[in-house]
Amino acid sequence: MANPTQPLPNQWNEMWLVAFGAVPGALVRWQVQNDLLVNVIGAAILGLVVGLPFRPSRQLLLGVGFCGSLTTFSSWMVECSTLISQGAWLSALGLIGLTMGLGLGVAALGFLIGWQFRPSGLGR
Amino acid sequence: MANPTQPLPNQWNEMWLVAFGAVPGALVRWQVQNDLLVNVIGAAILGLVVGLPFRPSRQLLLGVGFCGSLTTFSSWMVECSTLISQGAWLSALGLIGLTMGLGLGVAALGFLIGWQFRPSGLGR
Repeated sequence: MANPTQPLPNQWNEMWLVAFGAVPGALVRWQVQNDLLVNVIGAAILGLVVGLPFRPSRQLLLGVGFCGSLTTFSSWMVECSTLISQGAWLSALGLIGLTMGLGLGVAALGFLIGWQFRPSGLGR
Repeated sequence: MANPTQPLPNQWNEMWLVAFGAVPGALVRWQVQNDLLVNVIGAAILGLVVGLPFRPSRQLLLGVGFCGSLTTFSSWMVECSTLISQGAWLSALGLIGLTMGLGLGVAALGFLIGWQFRPSGLGR
């Protein structure tokens, strides 16, 4: 398996990129302490990263690693199910609607902006 | 600021816990390559972790670090907005409904199961 001209197999390099992106993503999420904010910002950045003509290594570092760890589904779900269990249906629905609406919107917008920078972009 | 009996300030210890949890979380998500699966499993584990009488350091490692990075909002949003942009409204709505329904359900279920292990649990 080992190739003397390549000290680490591809899979290892990719693992490091995901891990290096994940640590700052998780730390920023932990410091910000606001799921709506990190989710919306992360969805916008990921849309942009996917749209831009980035090479796969940057997509792994910024997309899978950073944005994947910056945004979270689990604590948003725990927050919403706690609200529902307390009978605060309207707050839960509002939080779900706001997060989903903004998330879908900024992901699409980020992608469209990134796509403009491709040689074969929509704007050309 | 430095305390000779405590080599690192609390904030640093907490940072390391979040980072140590985030790396395996992100790597599992990257390997599984299925947002629905990691989001549902992560929401269930976080519900359990929040419900269980874990001390704050374990909550940081497993909850904020691992579950936060295992689950993701950004790539789910990019996936849904791509489906919508392709006119696949039903697929997008189905993916949103399934993810939210399962996510809310397992987060609540995990929390209730975890809560049973508390000395002041609901079941006692």
